[in-house]
Amino acid sequence: MHLPPRVTICEVGPRDGLQNEARNVPTPDKIRLIEALADAGIQRMEATSFVAPKWIPNLADAGEVLGGIRRRPGVTYAALVPNLKGLERALAARVDEAVIFLSASESHSRKNINKGIAEALETYREVAGAVEQAGLRLKAAISTSFGCPYEGDVDPLTVVGIAMALMEMGVDEVGVADTTGMANPRQVFDLVSHLARHVPIEMISLHFHDTRGTALANVLAGLQAGVTTFDGSVGGLGGCPYAAGATGNVATEDLVHMLHEMGIETGVNLEKLIECAKLAQALVGRPLDSHVAKAGPVNHQRGSSTD
Amino acid sequence: MHLPPRVTICEVGPRDGLQNEARNVPTPDKIRLIEALADAGIQRMEATSFVAPKWIPNLADAGEVLGGIRRRPGVTYAALVPNLKGLERALAARVDEAVIFLSASESHSRKNINKGIAEALETYREVAGAVEQAGLRLKAAISTSFGCPYEGDVDPLTVVGIAMALMEMGVDEVGVADTTGMANPRQVFDLVSHLARHVPIEMISLHFHDTRGTALANVLAGLQAGVTTFDGSVGGLGGCPYAAGATGNVATEDLVHMLHEMGIETGVNLEKLIECAKLAQALVGRPLDSHVAKAGPVNHQRGSSTD
Repeated sequence: MHLPPRVTICEVGPRDGLQNEARNVPTPDKIRLIEALADAGIQRMEATSFVAPKWIPNLADAGEVLGGIRRRPGVTYAALVPNLKGLERALAARVDEAVIFLSASESHSRKNINKGIAEALETYREVAGAVEQAGLRLKAAISTSFGCPYEGDVDPLTVVGIAMALMEMGVDEVGVADTTGMANPRQVFDLVSHLARHVPIEMISLHFHDTRGTALANVLAGLQAGVTTFDGSVGGLGGCPYAAGATGNVATEDLVHMLHEMGIETGVNLEKLIECAKLAQALVGRPLDSHVAKAGPVNHQRGSSTD
Repeated sequence: MHLPPRVTICEVGPRDGLQNEARNVPTPDKIRLIEALADAGIQRMEATSFVAPKWIPNLADAGEVLGGIRRRPGVTYAALVPNLKGLERALAARVDEAVIFLSASESHSRKNINKGIAEALETYREVAGAVEQAGLRLKAAISTSFGCPYEGDVDPLTVVGIAMALMEMGVDEVGVADTTGMANPRQVFDLVSHLARHVPIEMISLHFHDTRGTALANVLAGLQAGVTTFDGSVGGLGGCPYAAGATGNVATEDLVHMLHEMGIETGVNLEKLIECAKLAQALVGRPLDSHVAKAGPVNHQRGSSTD
């Protein structure tokens, strides 16, 4: 089984997770979670979002969050940036990386960002230019790449087409996202293999949900296709606010645990990460869908297992 | 991605699941569940266990269950058979297949069946002879093949050694089981590849738990190693009664769903199987750990999804 020796984890919990919680986590607690994640060895993180507060009230404190964290050297603090106005706020807060979001289906695009795909690309072309001028890293995430809750199957050629438009804009990373847990491993392998003819494989990242239990199987297929960057959400926080039932971001600790068990390095301290998952659970005040935070890591030694 | 076109599902819920439930399901309800599973297209099933009732009181009605079901042509009704006495009862109840259980670790073997590995092999040699005389199919399952909750890592050579002893006894199937969810995909691929030098690949089956979220990733690795028979437990029922925290048999509907999504045939009707999971949940009176029974299958069509 051919697998890469090292993988980069992108933690999305503070943004993708907290934006959607019924309980709004106070700013100091968000900062505490972000600092704990960096302390656990997370080197790339979606810390918050500069979408207009009327759309995502939970993250109205984006500036205070980015301004309040003690920055750890070597960590990239990213934020979702929907347009030039959001970018302005993000730059004022000294963001390291801008993340733009598109959908691979018209219906999801309209429900999620209130624009069709072509219009979204147009807006982002402007944003991309400004991001480049500001000298920031730019990631573009393509939602519903493996299926849309409103439209069903999504044509892989649509995803490839959007990715090519993004490459023309000069993005540094193309995130391929399974927004509502519709992907299967064969599809992941095939789509990534297809995409890799147009986007260098090291620029492709994957984002999975465990809605139907397949998240880590999809990660395995992605690894086999050569992908080395994966999103995770601490504790399994979050989902997509505009798609009901779209719970189940893969828990970062489940992802890191499987990678480590396969001998793949991530640079993340799993024990500390599990503590972060417990912190996240306490902050949102509800039990989270993490396997490893509940069961604990595999114990390879005789005796002390709790199994 | 090279995958087999067709897979055989072995349903273990009525045995592995119900043996361990706090609520003992009445005999007629067990029969109802077994018949519903056969009706959903399950062709191989561990229906019950002939372990002495004092050890597994929930399955003390093994004879009544096997005697009470309307047998569906083409379905193999298996039962766990610990010794000659159990086999006698099983034969009287017209079982189709006997299943014997060993462990790949001494500590688990002693706790699970009150015998060391060598002693278990000796007992089973007798049982295997009698099973052959009776003209039944014989499956042997090797628990803790990927790690033991008491001993930690398990030497793959021990698993291979036990499998070779079982082959000498004339078993028809070697089930390799991850009893407490310790396996990772690379390990699965490597162990199966190793084992396949001594056991024909079509005689190897795999049994996974989703304790750490890796069940379907392990299935994928098993498929890639050439395995075409997998255990599942409807609704995710069950675990191992002698290993605390060992919850999380992979739900049969999650397994079947992923296989179908990848274009692999199972002969199982997923909709009916999901109904079985709901029935199982009602019978045991507690929410079960199934993804697909909760989220529903992926909807490939425009419009009617509940996502």
